Amino acid sequence: MKTSSHAQTSEKLEICNTHPMGRAIRLLGDMWTLMIVYTLLSGPKRFGELLDTMGNVSPKTLSQRLKMLEEGGFVDRLAFAEIPPRVEYNLTEKGLALVDVIKAIDQFAMQYLADSDQTSSASSSTPPSCE
Amino acid sequence: MKTSSHAQTSEKLEICNTHPMGRAIRLLGDMWTLMIVYTLLSGPKRFGELLDTMGNVSPKTLSQRLKMLEEGGFVDRLAFAEIPPRVEYNLTEKGLALVDVIKAIDQFAMQYLADSDQTSSASSSTPPSCE
Repeated sequence: MKTSSHAQTSEKLEICNTHPMGRAIRLLGDMWTLMIVYTLLSGPKRFGELLDTMGNVSPKTLSQRLKMLEEGGFVDRLAFAEIPPRVEYNLTEKGLALVDVIKAIDQFAMQYLADSDQTSSASSSTPPSCE
Repeated sequence: MKTSSHAQTSEKLEICNTHPMGRAIRLLGDMWTLMIVYTLLSGPKRFGELLDTMGNVSPKTLSQRLKMLEEGGFVDRLAFAEIPPRVEYNLTEKGLALVDVIKAIDQFAMQYLADSDQTSSASSSTPPSCE
């Protein structure tokens, strides 16, 4: 059940920020980032659409995460010269490569989190965050 | 590049806490949780070993995440009747099922984050968090 040779050799190194896996965990170990990537997998979205889809995220948090993803080369910000101006966010090729991570999470969720009785007490006691 | 039929139908529903994918994103969208799972994939660990391996996590945060994972059925806390007492943390079957998520993150990391120039400015400007 070991994921790769990395975990068996120098674990401390593996989760450092200087190592790819450490960087990936720091990037993806954020609920809003995962939600943005998941939402954008179905196609480009405007800021307002992302805000609506993601439920209870604040505009400031969404804006910060989009900027981070843009700077990291995962998301493109497309500005259309229209009146009124239109801006859309889209996954880049690098961002689309995260589809396998999202798929793995989706499969895990369907297998192990589909029954609400199996979820953690923290999750089951939290009211739905969106409609 | 769509991950499943879910993202195409009702996205708002998909990332709600009442839906498996929403729960999974809330569970895994946490850096420390991912690090614990990743570290435990190589075998059972004591609290101090986890603390050392994970670098800059505080004992309070580690304890809180382990408790949450235990309550969710992802981690077992094994207490050995020895002197001095020994306690180890191990992934349950449900926890081990997260190996595919970790593998997908690992593969993404190796492909897209191996070159430090490709990382986000936020990551590259942050000093390594462990030795």
